[in-house]
Amino acid sequence: MAVRHQSSSASPSSVTLDPMTGEATGLKRLAASELILERTNAPRTPPPSQSLVFGANFADHMLSIPWNSASGWAPPKIHPYAPLQLDPSAVIFHYAPSLFEGMKAYKDVNGKVRLFRPDMNMKRMNMSAARIALPTFDGEELTELIKKLVALDKAWIPSEPGHSLYIRPAMIGTEAALGVHPTKDALLFVISSPVGPYYKTGFKPVALEADPSKVRAWPGGTGHYKLGGNYAPGILPQMEAAKRGYQQNLWLFGEQELLTEVGTMNLMVVKKMADGGIELITPPLNGMILPGVTRDSILHIARDHVSGKHKLDSLPSKLTVSEREITMKEVVDASADGSLLEIFGAGTAAIVSPVDRIGYKGSDIHVPVTEGGSGPIAKAMLDRITDIQLGRVEHEWSVVFDETA
Amino acid sequence: MAVRHQSSSASPSSVTLDPMTGEATGLKRLAASELILERTNAPRTPPPSQSLVFGANFADHMLSIPWNSASGWAPPKIHPYAPLQLDPSAVIFHYAPSLFEGMKAYKDVNGKVRLFRPDMNMKRMNMSAARIALPTFDGEELTELIKKLVALDKAWIPSEPGHSLYIRPAMIGTEAALGVHPTKDALLFVISSPVGPYYKTGFKPVALEADPSKVRAWPGGTGHYKLGGNYAPGILPQMEAAKRGYQQNLWLFGEQELLTEVGTMNLMVVKKMADGGIELITPPLNGMILPGVTRDSILHIARDHVSGKHKLDSLPSKLTVSEREITMKEVVDASADGSLLEIFGAGTAAIVSPVDRIGYKGSDIHVPVTEGGSGPIAKAMLDRITDIQLGRVEHEWSVVFDETA
Repeated sequence: MAVRHQSSSASPSSVTLDPMTGEATGLKRLAASELILERTNAPRTPPPSQSLVFGANFADHMLSIPWNSASGWAPPKIHPYAPLQLDPSAVIFHYAPSLFEGMKAYKDVNGKVRLFRPDMNMKRMNMSAARIALPTFDGEELTELIKKLVALDKAWIPSEPGHSLYIRPAMIGTEAALGVHPTKDALLFVISSPVGPYYKTGFKPVALEADPSKVRAWPGGTGHYKLGGNYAPGILPQMEAAKRGYQQNLWLFGEQELLTEVGTMNLMVVKKMADGGIELITPPLNGMILPGVTRDSILHIARDHVSGKHKLDSLPSKLTVSEREITMKEVVDASADGSLLEIFGAGTAAIVSPVDRIGYKGSDIHVPVTEGGSGPIAKAMLDRITDIQLGRVEHEWSVVFDETA
Repeated sequence: MAVRHQSSSASPSSVTLDPMTGEATGLKRLAASELILERTNAPRTPPPSQSLVFGANFADHMLSIPWNSASGWAPPKIHPYAPLQLDPSAVIFHYAPSLFEGMKAYKDVNGKVRLFRPDMNMKRMNMSAARIALPTFDGEELTELIKKLVALDKAWIPSEPGHSLYIRPAMIGTEAALGVHPTKDALLFVISSPVGPYYKTGFKPVALEADPSKVRAWPGGTGHYKLGGNYAPGILPQMEAAKRGYQQNLWLFGEQELLTEVGTMNLMVVKKMADGGIELITPPLNGMILPGVTRDSILHIARDHVSGKHKLDSLPSKLTVSEREITMKEVVDASADGSLLEIFGAGTAAIVSPVDRIGYKGSDIHVPVTEGGSGPIAKAMLDRITDIQLGRVEHEWSVVFDETA
């Protein structure tokens, strides 16, 4: 059964009308309390956990919330997973008003369901929406709705260690009109997909290609928003890198060849300092870097270690945390003098992704991987974040919620 | 009735199989000869021409051509205009694999139907597709199919002067899977919309805002491809400019503040030269400029005038045609010394769009508009292109075709 989402899909009854003129006087806010729940009458069996492929299987239900510029947010609806039906002139097919988030729900060590820092995703989702003239919303309301969706599809959260239910909130412009203008109709929807562990049998470090001619983001552009339009252009460079034996792109910027991101992840570099200490470096949020939740979590964990708020035995005692620019020259020099200790990507899907090689100007820079395919800092961060996500340690980032749907 | 476009929509029978292994040995090419034609049994009446709004009404039929990475292009189908039905995980909703073209069909002075330089659109569409890992195709085959579509919906081409049928070819990735990778499924579709003249009652010159902090495109980016993802980010800057009384953005680039494009159009600047001649300037195709069909047509018309191949009385006798960089400083200086003669946008929808004012660093640069809201060069170009499009003069750019469907 298809759910049709088109112009003016919000019902007129949900609008506040001026009693004299009959005109709309206010836009309806996104309200979790207005949820309409339509359970599937044909629940499916989740696939065996060992056969899971990222983002290929979807849970029984989805959340849909249409928005219209005259009426605001329609009542949210959780309903059976179903195709979207959209006019071929819908703006999403022509001008890419499109944004998304990536989140995960985990079954913790006690069988409770947890989300990881959903407030960060809601904040970023609203920033993305505002940048492309899509509607904003109350993030706490959407988080409540996502909890209800996950609770209803609890059977789809794999309970094996390292498995999770990947949650994909997205928003698209849906107005059926070809002008390039703010869309009058939008659809916020959330689907979810059971996923296995990124590293089934130890780390698999990746090789990157650093090609200064390929530019992911630039000042005054949209690289720091999680917009659909930032992703399609990265696919061809990845395919080209793969032909030359590199799994992903190391995105550089400018004449200085600043390191910015790696594939679709934030970038972390670890160096040995002259005084024997260790520096953890990540590029600053300068308008070209996605403000990643994992990036932010790693910075917090490292700084809490340094400040003594939460010391970790797995991190070096002399640690410096730097949000600063780092150039290819610095990486080349550090590789030459032996002070380059680790490079890794940081993101929701893999948490950390160690790098062991960078192709640059015709030769390869080798990056140490010591702990079974990872460096010690990446491994420490993976362990700490996983401990928090799975409730092995209590932490405010890990949100346990009522699973009764 | 919805037409469902999902994974593996190409039928296995259209694939060439190896007689021994049964494996696919070649991808099917897009072939106009395989057209499946399903006429509507409920033809609608086109709206009155005077009520037309750009891109709001659509003709009775559309063209759909699914593609699959294992089988290639499925047989093209012309069928009644209908919603697309896509899985909510379809890549178009998440990573914006999206491109489009804008073309027009005209009824000429003898009632014949014409297209304008469709080969240019086909060439650019294939360039866009290759850039975002969508499939390419034989442009002549698609042109044939577009002709058949337009012929079938001939009643939707308004015959009033200045009216046309706007044709929107588009291609989207449709694979139902959340990984960021080359899509295994795509859909090429074409819809059409009757449109009125851009200038109903003479020219309406526009005011631009030049704000160096807003950057449309970047070297190494995708600004020279007609991708959906290039358009959504321009909407908010346009809304912000409008709040300050400017209709569109003048997109600048870099510390030199190079003029690049205006709104969603190419940019033309006309200056008086020291020797009394006239210079027509447009930024070069340096990787940040969309290779516009109207831009190219204007350059050809101007160069044919200069070379003597086709002199026009409406163009200056001493004309220099420059594809070169032009900075805001040059525009400011030219305005100050009186050598700034015209600025206009060039694009399919309006053909030319004269500019009379540029807001820059807190004050306004005034641009002459002499001919009822336009400058003489913009007006000459509009007249010449319109003459060609409507068959008032014979020209190879204007393609007459068989209207029997």
